[in-house]
Amino acid sequence: MKKISLLLFCLAFSFLSAQVNRIEPPNWWTGFKNENLQLLVHHPNIGNATPKISYDGVSIIKVHKAKSPNYLFIDVKIDKSTKPGKFNIVFESEKGKKITQSYELKPKSKPSEDFIGFNSSDAIYLITPDRFANGNEANDVVKSMQETTLDRTHDYKRHGGDIQGITDHIDYIKNLGFTAIWPTPVLTNDMKGGSYHGYAMTDFYQVDPRFGTLTDYKNLSEKLHQNGMKLIMDQVANHCGSEHWWMKDLPFSDWVNYQELFEKEKKYVTSNHRRTSNQDLYASEKDKKEMADGWFVSSMPDLNQRNPFLAKYIIQNSIWWIETLHLSGIRQDTYPYPDKVFMSNWAGEIMNEYPNFNIVGEEWSSNPLLIGYWQKGANNKDGYESNLRSTMDFAMQTLIPQAIKETESWDKGLAKIYDGLANDFHYASPKDIMIFPDNHDMDRIFTQMEENVENTKMALATYLVLPRIPQLYYGTEILMQNTAKPGDHGLIRTDFPGGWKGDKVNAFTGDGLSSEKKDMQSYLTKILNYRKNSKAIHDGKTIHFAPNNGVYTLFRMLNDEIVVLILNKNESAKVDLSTYKELGFEGKKMKNILTGEEIIWDKELTINKKGAYLFTTKMN
Amino acid sequence: MKKISLLLFCLAFSFLSAQVNRIEPPNWWTGFKNENLQLLVHHPNIGNATPKISYDGVSIIKVHKAKSPNYLFIDVKIDKSTKPGKFNIVFESEKGKKITQSYELKPKSKPSEDFIGFNSSDAIYLITPDRFANGNEANDVVKSMQETTLDRTHDYKRHGGDIQGITDHIDYIKNLGFTAIWPTPVLTNDMKGGSYHGYAMTDFYQVDPRFGTLTDYKNLSEKLHQNGMKLIMDQVANHCGSEHWWMKDLPFSDWVNYQELFEKEKKYVTSNHRRTSNQDLYASEKDKKEMADGWFVSSMPDLNQRNPFLAKYIIQNSIWWIETLHLSGIRQDTYPYPDKVFMSNWAGEIMNEYPNFNIVGEEWSSNPLLIGYWQKGANNKDGYESNLRSTMDFAMQTLIPQAIKETESWDKGLAKIYDGLANDFHYASPKDIMIFPDNHDMDRIFTQMEENVENTKMALATYLVLPRIPQLYYGTEILMQNTAKPGDHGLIRTDFPGGWKGDKVNAFTGDGLSSEKKDMQSYLTKILNYRKNSKAIHDGKTIHFAPNNGVYTLFRMLNDEIVVLILNKNESAKVDLSTYKELGFEGKKMKNILTGEEIIWDKELTINKKGAYLFTTKMN
Repeated sequence: MKKISLLLFCLAFSFLSAQVNRIEPPNWWTGFKNENLQLLVHHPNIGNATPKISYDGVSIIKVHKAKSPNYLFIDVKIDKSTKPGKFNIVFESEKGKKITQSYELKPKSKPSEDFIGFNSSDAIYLITPDRFANGNEANDVVKSMQETTLDRTHDYKRHGGDIQGITDHIDYIKNLGFTAIWPTPVLTNDMKGGSYHGYAMTDFYQVDPRFGTLTDYKNLSEKLHQNGMKLIMDQVANHCGSEHWWMKDLPFSDWVNYQELFEKEKKYVTSNHRRTSNQDLYASEKDKKEMADGWFVSSMPDLNQRNPFLAKYIIQNSIWWIETLHLSGIRQDTYPYPDKVFMSNWAGEIMNEYPNFNIVGEEWSSNPLLIGYWQKGANNKDGYESNLRSTMDFAMQTLIPQAIKETESWDKGLAKIYDGLANDFHYASPKDIMIFPDNHDMDRIFTQMEENVENTKMALATYLVLPRIPQLYYGTEILMQNTAKPGDHGLIRTDFPGGWKGDKVNAFTGDGLSSEKKDMQSYLTKILNYRKNSKAIHDGKTIHFAPNNGVYTLFRMLNDEIVVLILNKNESAKVDLSTYKELGFEGKKMKNILTGEEIIWDKELTINKKGAYLFTTKMN
Repeated sequence: MKKISLLLFCLAFSFLSAQVNRIEPPNWWTGFKNENLQLLVHHPNIGNATPKISYDGVSIIKVHKAKSPNYLFIDVKIDKSTKPGKFNIVFESEKGKKITQSYELKPKSKPSEDFIGFNSSDAIYLITPDRFANGNEANDVVKSMQETTLDRTHDYKRHGGDIQGITDHIDYIKNLGFTAIWPTPVLTNDMKGGSYHGYAMTDFYQVDPRFGTLTDYKNLSEKLHQNGMKLIMDQVANHCGSEHWWMKDLPFSDWVNYQELFEKEKKYVTSNHRRTSNQDLYASEKDKKEMADGWFVSSMPDLNQRNPFLAKYIIQNSIWWIETLHLSGIRQDTYPYPDKVFMSNWAGEIMNEYPNFNIVGEEWSSNPLLIGYWQKGANNKDGYESNLRSTMDFAMQTLIPQAIKETESWDKGLAKIYDGLANDFHYASPKDIMIFPDNHDMDRIFTQMEENVENTKMALATYLVLPRIPQLYYGTEILMQNTAKPGDHGLIRTDFPGGWKGDKVNAFTGDGLSSEKKDMQSYLTKILNYRKNSKAIHDGKTIHFAPNNGVYTLFRMLNDEIVVLILNKNESAKVDLSTYKELGFEGKKMKNILTGEEIIWDKELTINKKGAYLFTTKMN
């Protein structure tokens, strides 16, 4: 108690400084549909001050004190007619002392409608920045931060990869045929350890200095746009890192869940992870509370989005990043964990401002009922509308590898793809759902496929032609694997060869890369580059036929373009094309997308090898 | 060709007879909401005759010839004011010859609203009549029929069980605590072999003489009603038996699917059984057609319900049986196989006439999306409304045994019940869905549970307290099993001991029954008889708690009645009752439904044994 009094006393001096310690969002824009802005101000004893603004079109509507005297929340109205510019916010204390804080309203660089979200025309390259490429060795270690160890031999330490490393290799990613990237979080994680993954944010407005600067992040976005590519930001509304700056001085007594327990006993309650309690008609209040309010892990305090100030903080933070980086999408972590009413409001406010934007939420479930529940337009019986355009298809993710590995039977093997896709009838918009062979939390697809290259190729071809938004994890193109330790996150996030000076193998240039890996690069490059301009894959009608004797066929069609996927599990096969006569393709000339070989779609197609076959009617 | 001409020539003589060979429905009723009736008349050359009716309130609207000259379809209108009675239908041939057919309009014995369907207050005893009890040895073999072998040593031959055998044992079934019975079909299956199961009907209006007479069937229904019990009829709209009378002289060229192939080459196309094609947005026309039009098996020609005369025939047939037997429900076989638009019309017409009736459709799928699709009120995206109040929960059927057998982990074991029930949020009306540990097509629950009695009891207790309509298969109460041959239908449908004169063991009386089997009879008797009057189980609110250390708890509550199910997989357990404090049950007196022991719901509940525990606040 004495210590705290002393601390506050000392801090009180800083009231004399010219600027507040922290004002967030650090700037804002004119021209938003929503004229309201709520500023969080953090400064010793600022709670006793009265803020004033004198700027045309900007007015203070209400000032809120917090429980902690070191916060003020200021509701500001920015009229539609307000001109961009800088102004001062003057905080006057009860004793007449003043702080003058400068604040900027920037002009919007483009209309909100022009923020076009990722969609089914995209293919997304998911990157763990610490493990992709080290573009700037100078930021590998930042002495002022808590974790300073750089150790590439250790799977859970920082390896030095950064934003510059991604920017340096946009060409490589683009040439592979990707049109968007999703780096896992690059905001500050000033944690004592294990901070490389980025999901324990200690500052929602700062780029982690070990990943680079805000300028680097903006530069990455700009370079991507110059290449016609999109940037997706990985955001976390559910929790912060336990070393987040506000954890030492929480504004309200309900800023984080189980706050009293944490403040008194430094204890927390873990989430029960019973995600079904979001939908379950029979779930107990106990289970619902433990799910939504329990902490993900001890190092990640669970934020209470029912606190209206925190809710606004998170929503504005998302908008700040969209506008600052010209984002084309957000990937929202642990989607079913925060308060679900808040999540609907969060997505709703973003989509209201940016109607063509996109957000994908992570619900790790292979149950189509749960996947569908979270998608905008689900028409749920409980009336819940998520406002979330995209969800993640962990169901088909799981079924495709099973389908390809399993021995065929009536309901096993390829039937799992056929039956799984049939569930699409339940989704509000199947083509807006994200699909992926793997991600940063999951065994590498090559490991899932027991390092069988042909089976891996079959799986990948399938993911890429479905009516979905495909996402691949960096290194899939060079058969990266984690077979030695299934499920091991550190190993899953292995360094990309060539990303570090002195790497013996360089997958960017191909130097030292095995022919098998080069072949997979080439395989994916062909499919992805075809996909890039394939309206049939982006938006076409889908028709598939029940698997028969180890052969499954799926067609994507739009206008004159037909794309055919044939999965053949036999050593060779004669496919009777009369099976598909309802499609009227007889006599059509088609090209094998992978080999360039031309065929006529006639009576029978002879296939001499197990594998995925992709044909198109687009001949050039 | 010559043979057929000769046959028709010979049959032509019968035009002289006083009655037609066949007129269906064989009678009808006054007072239906629907004033229309379509009569099928089958008689040599009747197609050339003109029918006339002279009866107040009855008029012929239209007469339809078929492709075969031996059919007439007569649209009759029965005015609301029509009095019950008999009248003649006079058929006059072109040459002036007349047949005078008597026809009766009976009075409805009770208003249609009073046909109360089975519902969640019921527990249904499913019986395979050939295998339950032989009440009348005189009908064991009927010489005029094609299959005359009676062989109790053979699992696929007839064993002699019959309707009388069921009627004789209503007391037994009632005392067990069941409130309804569903016998598998008892209509004529005059097939060359394998006819004991009843699903290959050769006459939709006749009771199989080996099972008894229409009088026997009516008598069974009446006796059930006298005991406050309900009769459910097993009907088949999808197919008939290959020996059905009309297969030798089909009225139209599209009466059965793939009819041309059948008539020319005696061949058929098998259904691909791809039931998902009913919902799948991507299903090919080929797969849809093979699913809906393919034959279930060679001995079961697939009826074409798109033929409007066949459609009416099936709907009227169902109504005829409801009214004749005072049915309380229909179980419709192979629900997703017939034309689904027809099925919606079929159920719609029945439910329109009998608004409180119930029908359950068999969709053998463990996918809640498909189960939910077929239920009335599903609000399907494709606009399909089944009009079907009850579907079958093959999903929870499967999950419960897995949950009890599996080793516990976060998502295995009891979590499968917890997660499975969470899917109820998707259903239009969970409590109207039928659940069952097994049925006539599935391994006996005791076999599923690897003959572990305690696990079997746990499973059964669970099925009986869920918000569902439970159905048990005869013999479950005496641990009947088919462990020697999993999946073997003949063995699954083993004779019920005591159903035949001279049986060494008699499960009806308990003579010769092992103590283990008697114990299971007693166990189910206690639960079922409690369930019979438990409004909390029939209609109560459900709350459950995520499994914890091998203990799962589910509560059913209505007004003052609380029913608690605890599944404990440990050798012993101390259940911390503060877990449930949100329910406010502290201090409540409860009774163990199985042992009668009284407890106070206080701080902790000590359980000394693995198993299912059922408590209630109803003390008498």
